[in-house]
Amino acid sequence: MTQLENAKNNILTPIAKTIARLEGIEHKLILKRIKEGKIVIPLNKRHKIAKPCGIGLGLRTKVNANIGTSTDKCQIKDELRKLKIAIDYGTDAIMDLSIGGNLREIRKKVLKYSTVPVGTVPIYEIAVNAQKKRQDFLKFTASEVLDVLESQAREGVDFFTIHAGVTKKNLAILKKHKRVLDIVSRGGAILASWMSCHKKENPFYEYFDKILDIAHRYDVTLSLGDGLRPGSVLDSTDEAQLAELKTLGALTMRAKRKNVQVMIEGPGHVPLNDIKKNIVLEKKICYQAPFYVLGPLVTDVAAGYDHINASIGGALAGSFGADFLCYVTASEHLRHPSVEDVREGVIAARIAAHAADIAKGLPSAIRWDREISQARKKRDWRKQIQLSIDPAKAKKYRVSSKPHLLDVCTMCGKYCSIKLMEEYG
Amino acid sequence: MTQLENAKNNILTPIAKTIARLEGIEHKLILKRIKEGKIVIPLNKRHKIAKPCGIGLGLRTKVNANIGTSTDKCQIKDELRKLKIAIDYGTDAIMDLSIGGNLREIRKKVLKYSTVPVGTVPIYEIAVNAQKKRQDFLKFTASEVLDVLESQAREGVDFFTIHAGVTKKNLAILKKHKRVLDIVSRGGAILASWMSCHKKENPFYEYFDKILDIAHRYDVTLSLGDGLRPGSVLDSTDEAQLAELKTLGALTMRAKRKNVQVMIEGPGHVPLNDIKKNIVLEKKICYQAPFYVLGPLVTDVAAGYDHINASIGGALAGSFGADFLCYVTASEHLRHPSVEDVREGVIAARIAAHAADIAKGLPSAIRWDREISQARKKRDWRKQIQLSIDPAKAKKYRVSSKPHLLDVCTMCGKYCSIKLMEEYG
Repeated sequence: MTQLENAKNNILTPIAKTIARLEGIEHKLILKRIKEGKIVIPLNKRHKIAKPCGIGLGLRTKVNANIGTSTDKCQIKDELRKLKIAIDYGTDAIMDLSIGGNLREIRKKVLKYSTVPVGTVPIYEIAVNAQKKRQDFLKFTASEVLDVLESQAREGVDFFTIHAGVTKKNLAILKKHKRVLDIVSRGGAILASWMSCHKKENPFYEYFDKILDIAHRYDVTLSLGDGLRPGSVLDSTDEAQLAELKTLGALTMRAKRKNVQVMIEGPGHVPLNDIKKNIVLEKKICYQAPFYVLGPLVTDVAAGYDHINASIGGALAGSFGADFLCYVTASEHLRHPSVEDVREGVIAARIAAHAADIAKGLPSAIRWDREISQARKKRDWRKQIQLSIDPAKAKKYRVSSKPHLLDVCTMCGKYCSIKLMEEYG
Repeated sequence: MTQLENAKNNILTPIAKTIARLEGIEHKLILKRIKEGKIVIPLNKRHKIAKPCGIGLGLRTKVNANIGTSTDKCQIKDELRKLKIAIDYGTDAIMDLSIGGNLREIRKKVLKYSTVPVGTVPIYEIAVNAQKKRQDFLKFTASEVLDVLESQAREGVDFFTIHAGVTKKNLAILKKHKRVLDIVSRGGAILASWMSCHKKENPFYEYFDKILDIAHRYDVTLSLGDGLRPGSVLDSTDEAQLAELKTLGALTMRAKRKNVQVMIEGPGHVPLNDIKKNIVLEKKICYQAPFYVLGPLVTDVAAGYDHINASIGGALAGSFGADFLCYVTASEHLRHPSVEDVREGVIAARIAAHAADIAKGLPSAIRWDREISQARKKRDWRKQIQLSIDPAKAKKYRVSSKPHLLDVCTMCGKYCSIKLMEEYG
């Protein structure tokens, strides 16, 4: 039985119990929310991980780090280094988005070494297989789509992004209402290309019931991808995006009926003033399914700093109820990310998630800030560093700049306001 | 006559005319808003700069970079390098917060080389002079306070941060309502210490009229500092902070009557859900004076990444109407910032300001995003890089990772969604 099925039968699984303990919420409440589809636990029956993660209402906002080869950069060892650093720096989940080299081998290693849930975008393997077998990445059939889903599920993948909302109807809407940038989702664009070439409906949409059967068998959580997400803040929340969201809402209900866990992927490039509306609409249209946002990026001009850009959007989205933030790295829009980009990207996303949790009043989040500020008041540097979001970086900075007075820092020296208040206040 | 006085007499000064042109707003409107105190132009009559800057309603959100020596780090050449990099990377203003070495010499160089308005916190020089003359930084008199203000104004400083709201009454409120961290403003703490030692009222408050005379004579804009700003998100928007804000509101009215330009400094550490309230209150209590926020930081735990933390808070504050964002560097809470910290800090703040301007619908901001996204659609890399917020970094990333197909990047290679849509869409 899937986590959703168990909850419907009022069975608290060991994993749900663990999540409740980690998050400090009651058994009854987590059971209720899993049952309602407001919380998902992406964990394939065949995958063992040390750090399971619940995503959804009332839980800590979670962070995902994308890794994976590209056609230009396909060293497995580089991706495994990224995996390790992303986990060491506190990501809650990993997506292997490989499109270069031996995808199966990479995925197997990622599944083996990851201590957190692992997601994939199966259309990549489908396209890459077609390219290898037939020298044309669009020469694949619907049955091959299902085969790849089945084999990845058997290997233990915890969640699949499937762009089932890129339907003929929604693509017609996209064409009708001009955008600055059309499709900026790699998976969405592959599917749209396939549909255009073969004059067929999206196989993820057409065979959604079969996909549900596979997902149900292994308890793979479906992450309904937003293939039509805006790629410019000028395209935000437009007709095509909303039409796709409605399709995803209908698919959510079908998945829930079949006891398959579902979350919804969201934009993308969204101006600050549109973020709240995006969260409210998703929750309304998709029956309160957890919302997994890609950033969002609040401007198009921050190439080289898109981790900061995404951190702004992610913090705000999280504060309004987005449940799961996909990091964006500083390399976005420019190149395949480096190991260092992954590290900074994870931390930037974690800052956003934590800021959102404070805004939502999550007790564990507020406790963390209280503790570090108390250490700051005492000028207890060891503890301040230990409680910083990246203790290694905080320590490096502190050590690099030694003050004459050891209880302060080189910014203010003897004029440290905290010290002054202790002496004279 | 000051800019405010001229506006009251319906005189459009050459500098106001320049600002109107740079911002693309009508002469009548800028005149009206300067008159109402909703826009300030910090520019000392004795200071010549190449890039004047207007701050306030309807203008582009501006960014300030703090530089300056500390007691531990007092190399003038390092600070001049920071000045240059901050300006090269697009800061709209500079504050020289030096507290180490020969302050006057440093300030003169900063005033000479800065192409943007320069602000100071005169209490630093007052305290440092007392320390030098009398080996006690608290041994200064009210008349010495006025002397330093006069001499800095004569040198050409464009705006002063004065912590005139740290009054006896407000300090009593601070004591009554316990905080996690008391005073985290260096200037505020020096003044509170002086008041406590000498049992006297804050000289900036007591002699505010004399300060207005000085400011009026040179058209120095007053930045009314928030000495009681919260230093932890747990202390945000508390009694002491609000009491001080009310004092600043009353002082604002007095300054405007004397034709002195005023802006208000704001927090500090503020959770995301408190930011809007802070902006609304400032605008209401301080007669719509421009709001100059320090961050705000949306969590206390991000030491090493406070530029990102401030970027989140600053973007949101700007979108709600904060007019001027003081950057925070990655070194905040840990050490005196490096040149690299200054560069990244300026860019992070500019991203926040720009995201706010998009949210507010500023046409020039939206145009920028449209242009870069159109270049992205064409896969015109030269133009994308040129239009990025930091072209040098964007170029470095692009060059570091060469794709096989030159019109895409190494992230997606042949599976570039934009290229796919061009070929198959």
